[in-house]
Amino acid sequence: MVPQLALVPGEPSGVGPELCVRLVQQPRSDCRLLAFADPDTLRAAAAALDLPLNLLPEDAHASAPGDLRLRDVRNAAPCRFGQPDPANARAVIDALLGAGQACLDGRLDGVVTGPVHKAAINEGGIAYSGTTELLARQAGVEVVMMLANAHMRVALATTHLPLRAVPDAITAAGLRTVIGTTHAALRRDFGLERPRIAVLGLNPHAGEDGHLGREELDVIIPLLERLRGEGLDLAGPLPADTAFLPARLRGFDAVLAMYHDQGLPVLKYSGFEQAVNVTLGLPYPRVAVDHGTALDLAGKGTADPSSLQAATALCARLAAQRKIIQ
Amino acid sequence: MVPQLALVPGEPSGVGPELCVRLVQQPRSDCRLLAFADPDTLRAAAAALDLPLNLLPEDAHASAPGDLRLRDVRNAAPCRFGQPDPANARAVIDALLGAGQACLDGRLDGVVTGPVHKAAINEGGIAYSGTTELLARQAGVEVVMMLANAHMRVALATTHLPLRAVPDAITAAGLRTVIGTTHAALRRDFGLERPRIAVLGLNPHAGEDGHLGREELDVIIPLLERLRGEGLDLAGPLPADTAFLPARLRGFDAVLAMYHDQGLPVLKYSGFEQAVNVTLGLPYPRVAVDHGTALDLAGKGTADPSSLQAATALCARLAAQRKIIQ
Repeated sequence: MVPQLALVPGEPSGVGPELCVRLVQQPRSDCRLLAFADPDTLRAAAAALDLPLNLLPEDAHASAPGDLRLRDVRNAAPCRFGQPDPANARAVIDALLGAGQACLDGRLDGVVTGPVHKAAINEGGIAYSGTTELLARQAGVEVVMMLANAHMRVALATTHLPLRAVPDAITAAGLRTVIGTTHAALRRDFGLERPRIAVLGLNPHAGEDGHLGREELDVIIPLLERLRGEGLDLAGPLPADTAFLPARLRGFDAVLAMYHDQGLPVLKYSGFEQAVNVTLGLPYPRVAVDHGTALDLAGKGTADPSSLQAATALCARLAAQRKIIQ
Repeated sequence: MVPQLALVPGEPSGVGPELCVRLVQQPRSDCRLLAFADPDTLRAAAAALDLPLNLLPEDAHASAPGDLRLRDVRNAAPCRFGQPDPANARAVIDALLGAGQACLDGRLDGVVTGPVHKAAINEGGIAYSGTTELLARQAGVEVVMMLANAHMRVALATTHLPLRAVPDAITAAGLRTVIGTTHAALRRDFGLERPRIAVLGLNPHAGEDGHLGREELDVIIPLLERLRGEGLDLAGPLPADTAFLPARLRGFDAVLAMYHDQGLPVLKYSGFEQAVNVTLGLPYPRVAVDHGTALDLAGKGTADPSSLQAATALCARLAAQRKIIQ
C-alpha cells in the first residue's frame, strides 16, 4: 500500500503554506498526504498564488489538482504573510507533535515538514531549538541530522554548537552512537545492504599524524578501528578538504562531518534547491526542507518548491522501504 | 615587457618535475619561465614521459617545445620517483629561497611552485611548515593564503591550526591584518578597484545573535564596522553554509573563511584540478599548485598538469598587473 505521510507547513507567515499548496497541484502516486495545518492559512496562500485548493476530510480521496486532506490545527491569530505572530507558536508546535504522534501510533508512515521560525516559537513562550530535537524528544530517541541532495549525503556528528564547544563534544561514546544510527538508517531506510561511510577528521588534514591536533589519534581512529572490527565499512578519518572531491564521493554512501560548517557549505553549494534534511534514528522517516521561512518571499508566489518536492519524494521512498522490510 | 617568472618544481621525487616538463611543451606568450631546479631530475622526468626537454642558459631564448631556461640548483642525491630522500631537502629549500630572492632583488617578477613534501624536508633537518611561511619569513612580511579556481576565491584567516586553537586565534588585530592584506592584494594584483569581500562567521549560522557563540558579537562584527568606516566593502559575518551558494558568490570577489575546513572543502569540490594557491601580501606574486606531491603517480606521466598550468597563467597575469601599476 502507498505510504501515508503527514505534511506540516511550519511557520504560517513564511513560505511553507504556499509551498504545500504548490506541492498538491500535481497528483502523485508515491504517497498520500495529510496536512496538519490551519485551513485559513492554506486558503490564504492558495488565494495569494491564485491556485486551486480543496481541503478535504481525512478519510476523503484526493485526486484532483489542489486536493489536500486536512487534520485541522487552528492558529490562534490570523496569518499575515511575512509577519510571524508568537500567538501562533502553539499551533505550529501542535501540528508537528500531532504528525509525530500519528507516526508513533502507526497511523501514518512518515513526516514531511516545512520551515519553522525559531524566534517566533520561543517568543511564544515555548522552548524550541529545532524540529529535529522536538521530534526526537517526543519519540525518546537520539537522532542524527543528515542533509542530502542528488550529489551527496552529509550526516553531522555535532549540529548547532559554538565552534569552541565542538572538540570536547567529539567523544568516543557519542561518535559511536552517531555512526551506529547513521549506519542503521542507511541500511533500513535507504536500503543499502552494506553502507560505506566516510568519516571526516576533526582537524585540518585530519590532524596530520598529530601535528595539527590529537583528537584523531586519541578518539576517532581507535573508535573507527573498533567499529570496523564489528563489521562496519568506514573510511577515515579523512581530511575534509579532499573527501568531497567528486571522484572520491562516488565511493561513499554518506559522509559524516564532525561539525556544521565542515560539511554543509559543500552540500549546499552542490545543490541547494533540491537539498533536504533527513532525521535518522526516529521510529519513522522524517524529511524537512533545507531552507528557512523566507519571510520576504511569503505570499508572493516566487518561492522555489524544489526542496519540499524533494523532501516529499524522499520521505515517500523511505517509508515505502520500511514497509517492504517490516 | 612580458613578466619573468621563477618555476620551482618542489619535491624531486614527486610529480612536480614532470608537470614542469609538461608545462613547457607549449610555447607561451604571457611570461618567460626560469626553472630553479636540478637538471638531472628534470631530464629524468622528461625521459620517463618521453617528452622533449632542452635545458638552456638563463640568458637564452626559449622558443621550441621543451625549451626551458635553468638556474641550476643541484640535488645532493639522485632522484628516484616516488621515494623522497631527505638528503635533497636543502636543494628543495634553496630553489625556493633562490626564486624568492630573485624577486626581492627585482630580477624576476613572480614565483610559481610545485608541491613540496613537508616530512622529507623536516627529516632533512630543516624546520619547514610550508612554502607560504618560508617565503613570508624571507620577505619579512605577513601573508594570507588564498585558494582560487574559476568559480571562487577563498582566503583563510587561519590556516594549519588544530580546530581547538582556532577560536582564540581569531582576534581583532589579526583579522584586521588579514582583511587589509586581502583587500590590498585584490586591488593591486587582481586589479579590482573596489573589492567586495564576504567575511564568514566563526560559528555555525554566524553565531545566530550570540546563541551559537559570541565571537561574532565580540570580535568580528565590531571590526567589520570599523573597517567599513575606513571604506572597505565587506559583507558579513555570513553563515558559511549559505555564503557559497552560487547566486550569492557572484556578488563577491573573495570569501574570507575563518579556518581551513570551513572554506576549502567547497573550493576543492567546485574545481580541484584548476585550483591554485595564491600567497597574498608578498612583495611579488606567488602562485602554487593546490595538490600534493602524489608520490604514487610520479614518473608515470598520468598526473594532471591543470593546476600548474592554471598557477602559471595566474602568476603571469598578476605579475603583468603589477607592472602596469608600477
